[in-house]
Amino acid sequence: MQHVYLDHAATTPTDPRVLAAMLPFFHEKYANPSSFHSKGLEAKRAVSDARGRIARILNVREDEIIFTGNGTESDNLAVTGIVRAYKEKGRHVITSSIEHPAVLETLQHMAKKGEIDLTVLAVDRDGLVSVDAFVAALRDDTVLVSIMMANNEIGTIEPIAEIGRAILKWRKDKLTPLPYFHTDACQAAGALDLDIEKLHVDLLTFNGSKIYGPKGIGALYVRRSVKVEPMIRGGGQEKNYRSGTENVPGIIGLATALELAQAAKDSENLRLAALRDRLIVGLLRIPKSRLNGHPTTRLPNNANISFLDIEGEAMILYMDAKGIYVSTGSACASTSLDPSHVILATGLSYEAAHGSIRFSLGRDTTQEDVDYVITEMPGIVERLRHMSPVNLDMKHFA
Amino acid sequence: MQHVYLDHAATTPTDPRVLAAMLPFFHEKYANPSSFHSKGLEAKRAVSDARGRIARILNVREDEIIFTGNGTESDNLAVTGIVRAYKEKGRHVITSSIEHPAVLETLQHMAKKGEIDLTVLAVDRDGLVSVDAFVAALRDDTVLVSIMMANNEIGTIEPIAEIGRAILKWRKDKLTPLPYFHTDACQAAGALDLDIEKLHVDLLTFNGSKIYGPKGIGALYVRRSVKVEPMIRGGGQEKNYRSGTENVPGIIGLATALELAQAAKDSENLRLAALRDRLIVGLLRIPKSRLNGHPTTRLPNNANISFLDIEGEAMILYMDAKGIYVSTGSACASTSLDPSHVILATGLSYEAAHGSIRFSLGRDTTQEDVDYVITEMPGIVERLRHMSPVNLDMKHFA
Repeated sequence: MQHVYLDHAATTPTDPRVLAAMLPFFHEKYANPSSFHSKGLEAKRAVSDARGRIARILNVREDEIIFTGNGTESDNLAVTGIVRAYKEKGRHVITSSIEHPAVLETLQHMAKKGEIDLTVLAVDRDGLVSVDAFVAALRDDTVLVSIMMANNEIGTIEPIAEIGRAILKWRKDKLTPLPYFHTDACQAAGALDLDIEKLHVDLLTFNGSKIYGPKGIGALYVRRSVKVEPMIRGGGQEKNYRSGTENVPGIIGLATALELAQAAKDSENLRLAALRDRLIVGLLRIPKSRLNGHPTTRLPNNANISFLDIEGEAMILYMDAKGIYVSTGSACASTSLDPSHVILATGLSYEAAHGSIRFSLGRDTTQEDVDYVITEMPGIVERLRHMSPVNLDMKHFA
Repeated sequence: MQHVYLDHAATTPTDPRVLAAMLPFFHEKYANPSSFHSKGLEAKRAVSDARGRIARILNVREDEIIFTGNGTESDNLAVTGIVRAYKEKGRHVITSSIEHPAVLETLQHMAKKGEIDLTVLAVDRDGLVSVDAFVAALRDDTVLVSIMMANNEIGTIEPIAEIGRAILKWRKDKLTPLPYFHTDACQAAGALDLDIEKLHVDLLTFNGSKIYGPKGIGALYVRRSVKVEPMIRGGGQEKNYRSGTENVPGIIGLATALELAQAAKDSENLRLAALRDRLIVGLLRIPKSRLNGHPTTRLPNNANISFLDIEGEAMILYMDAKGIYVSTGSACASTSLDPSHVILATGLSYEAAHGSIRFSLGRDTTQEDVDYVITEMPGIVERLRHMSPVNLDMKHFA
């Protein structure tokens, strides 16, 4: 049986070149970077070198990169860290309805506890945040804006640079350094330009497991002039922002993965977008189907399709039996059986949202894989619809 | 030149068997354990299997093990998690003066913010917490006790089971489930019995990087009847206690490392204790030297020695030049040049504490290594003393 892994947005395999770069740090250069001896210094230099390589890609200074345990921790550190460090300056936060739970649930939890006032911006049918609506939501007491760079479920790329420029204008007009702007770039880091100068963000999250790096490592860019309240205290590593012995192999892996992904992104984006469009065109021939997310302003590897009258989890099992591995939405939200909050936010009905499948392509995806999926999917959909008790109208997509 | 790494308490190399167990999870079984398809299930099963292997060693249930990013995060989750989950029940916390900063600084920070009342128990000259003093410190509003199992700097093994029994008696007498008892077992996990039934603890922290497992992975045992407030929110992984994609290779590595260490500990402890004592006897022949920590109730791989009239960091550099790699104290505290809070807590003067060196032996340590250190150290100490502006009296050790 053919095996077609189209769940790269959930996680990617670790690139063999990344793993090769990591290996010496497990049992040769294994010392604690905080140790004063030359073995410790060797590890410290490797961490510093990795930090520098990442900083060059982001066009920032080395000391503006903080290593964490994953994207979720970076997101949490960014949003709780800004809110708590600047609580005397204001308590209003703006985010979007399609953020990853690491941002959205963290902020909603703080709002529920009365720690912040939260504005959650709606998105349009394509999953886009409106810059005008964003500007209208800005308040004198807004301390933090957190809008993701590209959505992990529907692939829509948000207008981060435009929002960043609107914030710069607000600050200039109001003569204030606030609000600070965080973007979750976990899903974007492998495909989009991360130049902070162009994005005008103050904090940026990314991680290893989405860019062919290892799991268990993330990073947070924090602009030098900005402070975050630490979440994890102890030995004072990472400029006191995140204590704990540095995950040296993970850090080396993250830097290597980011470099490889960014170096290959132009050609790889072209290749993936062509495969993605071939897949979308093929799948939309299935009746009562719809593409979720923006038709063009989307990640090159993402095709999210809703099929009416079908339960997504059942579809995943049928596809699994054919060797096709996909997700309904965010793997991180899939412990609940509720339909995706992202798909719902784009205006689909609860019933229609339930039949959504995210196909996320990757480095190993071939045209043969795509054609196999296009060939198998109509039969799977037909079989499931045959058993389905519902028969929804196309207006569920409206 | 001979290379003698005696800094295993700072971090250990990853055992090749551990690394071998991890490797398939980087690029073969790489899926996200939250994904519903069979590749996701494969990763989920591997995580569950690792959790079960750890649970068996701790003699607990699989769902009582929470994976985190390292020991520091586990310590933070334990102490902030209990304090915040039970804040309605009381706000008094008891800890010791020789805890790792991940516990002590976190609690001191909460005390400073007015979140808790903190009692920091003194230790005796050998670094032991007094069980009587502990019992006297218990209050009706004590919600948390956090005492480490064995100290990372001086190696002293604390009377955890005795403290645990005292807490059980308190609870029974007072008809209360409180306080809950956390122990930081990071330094102990490779050498001591972790059977929770015998220790009578409710939470226990350990990590990979101290037991020949990988960096970037830790675990927290949380008794089923106990709740902790999460620090990191998002996709709801780890029973909602710690969101973020599971570090699958790290988790497999941690379980493998713990199994290997626990299986070998009886014979390895004997071997290490003999080498340690040979080292201690050899080094104490140097004038104006003293063994820190308990003479016998100490970790088998730890020898912490103070040399008067010498600055520890200078000694490390001289030893480094001879290929001997050690630390002054906790690597996690070494970003500051203050002498170790642990050594100071045992009653040494500030000046004497400055000349303390931690020799921590490991699996690769041989008698030849120990004899090399015993041979080289007198010359190094003599040279440094020759340059030293101070000439302290032995009463600095009193």
